[in-house]
Amino acid sequence: MTSQSIAIDAMGGDVGPNVTIPASLDALKRYPKLHIILVGNQVIIEALLKSHNAENHPRIAIKSTTQVVLMDESPQSALKNKKDSSMRIAINLVKDGEAHACVSAGNTGALMATARFVLKTLKGIDRPAIASNLPNQKGTTCMLDLGANADCTPEQLLQFAIMGSMLTKAHTKKKKPTIGLLNIGSEEIKGNEVVKQAAHLIKNSHLNFYGNVEGNDIFKGTTDVVVCDGFVGNIALKTTEGLAQMMGRFLSEEFKRNWLTKLMGIIAIPVLKAFKRRLDPRRYNGASFLGLNGIVIKSHGGTDAYGFRYAIATAVEEIDSKIIENIKKQLEVEFSVK
Amino acid sequence: MTSQSIAIDAMGGDVGPNVTIPASLDALKRYPKLHIILVGNQVIIEALLKSHNAENHPRIAIKSTTQVVLMDESPQSALKNKKDSSMRIAINLVKDGEAHACVSAGNTGALMATARFVLKTLKGIDRPAIASNLPNQKGTTCMLDLGANADCTPEQLLQFAIMGSMLTKAHTKKKKPTIGLLNIGSEEIKGNEVVKQAAHLIKNSHLNFYGNVEGNDIFKGTTDVVVCDGFVGNIALKTTEGLAQMMGRFLSEEFKRNWLTKLMGIIAIPVLKAFKRRLDPRRYNGASFLGLNGIVIKSHGGTDAYGFRYAIATAVEEIDSKIIENIKKQLEVEFSVK
Repeated sequence: MTSQSIAIDAMGGDVGPNVTIPASLDALKRYPKLHIILVGNQVIIEALLKSHNAENHPRIAIKSTTQVVLMDESPQSALKNKKDSSMRIAINLVKDGEAHACVSAGNTGALMATARFVLKTLKGIDRPAIASNLPNQKGTTCMLDLGANADCTPEQLLQFAIMGSMLTKAHTKKKKPTIGLLNIGSEEIKGNEVVKQAAHLIKNSHLNFYGNVEGNDIFKGTTDVVVCDGFVGNIALKTTEGLAQMMGRFLSEEFKRNWLTKLMGIIAIPVLKAFKRRLDPRRYNGASFLGLNGIVIKSHGGTDAYGFRYAIATAVEEIDSKIIENIKKQLEVEFSVK
Repeated sequence: MTSQSIAIDAMGGDVGPNVTIPASLDALKRYPKLHIILVGNQVIIEALLKSHNAENHPRIAIKSTTQVVLMDESPQSALKNKKDSSMRIAINLVKDGEAHACVSAGNTGALMATARFVLKTLKGIDRPAIASNLPNQKGTTCMLDLGANADCTPEQLLQFAIMGSMLTKAHTKKKKPTIGLLNIGSEEIKGNEVVKQAAHLIKNSHLNFYGNVEGNDIFKGTTDVVVCDGFVGNIALKTTEGLAQMMGRFLSEEFKRNWLTKLMGIIAIPVLKAFKRRLDPRRYNGASFLGLNGIVIKSHGGTDAYGFRYAIATAVEEIDSKIIENIKKQLEVEFSVK
């Protein structure tokens, strides 16, 4: 296998090949050692490559498949009935050692279920978690779990802390990322029972535990990693998406109020664009499914080629950092040495 | 008792009387039927009233107290050792029927513990909840619990739904507010066990249950009320505070980048001010402690007189709508008729 080989679920996402193929070509330009296997309908893929004058790209291979997992298909149905889907075959390529990682913009539930079924979880990990980097005032915060596990045990939260620490190492090169445990700061009660026990476990691990953090610490950048269960993480993430959307709309409405404010808006365009770019969710696209015997990156289903390329970049960084080996090593340190 | 009588914990908050007294005077101007009892150090209160030329205001009474609950004091200590505190006496006035409501910017934990101890919870309510109105794209969303109860039962979530419905009635005059249950939308798992059972309970109540909502629905305004446990609610709230702060900072940084962007910023000032005003947290100040035998409003500890006045306005609306009677009636409907 070449140094960076990524299987792309070319058919996944709201748009499919019209997003995944241009993004792949862009990624190949940026990463000279990258090899891509485009998994999906051969006819469509070949036609699109040709339209981009890339039909004989030396670092592209095509793996032909006959099925597609639908965006609203149940995980059970995808597992049972879609054994020749672009999603399933892309994951199989990771299992078979033909690719170092797989990137898909397909249905989250089906991708998680298929990845678990095909790749299996690492020894010491109960269930995989979904992790993502969010912008903060200083850089990025790695947050997990973002929705794979609604009810978590304290032990699972420790496992998330281990994986989040290794993921941050992969993306930021920090040697000892700080870990924060998401909690509430009410004077009367300090968190629920699971979080209290998890704090005890993480404190006694080899990780760099900062302690409890609150919701606002995610964007302050108080710690490198923020650990929480998937219920809380998903709600926090979606809530911020909702707020960002509303703030964007309010700002736009205020500039559109009358001809004078419209003029002010036109004058301020360069600044507003720079502001928008800084928070562009496409630049943070690419969630990591952690805890599996292989790298699986989930792209937002509705992103464009610009965003999908960031998901591929996430996969490249995780390959280069040997994240799976690092997580395995850290799990050994935590669960056998201690 | 006059038609709107509010006991103000004049000493509470980071600043104390210099915020609570100007805010009270402003509220008295806005509400001609409002009577205020300023609870706290008589010398300080009289001096401040004099400095505002309001020493003989016909609708102000002073209740002299000798103690103050500190902002970092434990609820236990406040309960035990601060029986003559401005906070405690303000709540006592509600219990004794001398005030319809109490407003405090003091220590949240102490206020909740004291309010529960003095006023007791309503029949049918296990524990009080903290509710607040948040801005959404159409108006406001009433969200609860925001941090009083970290671990909740499905029955408690139903109680929150009842109280949130009545609070929304009080503030918006909507007759049948829609209730959303905060959940996650992952394809693989739909929420934790408590939420699943709560959905069943609320569906079978007399409330206008919309169904599950996700984090982004809070700011979309999908439902009038969003119900969740205090752990999730507090984290969602704090997370949005953190994001709003970061976005504000990024916007300001982009306008300060060089002389040209600074100029653009000066030109856009009126629009930016209008935008800021729309999301000004002071305008949403005033969280309701629901489920008690009396109205207790918690103001943000760090707010100014402009913000504290909004907390007083919240109390006025709740008095006018007879919220306690409405909650009691609805609890009877839910728990005895059915």
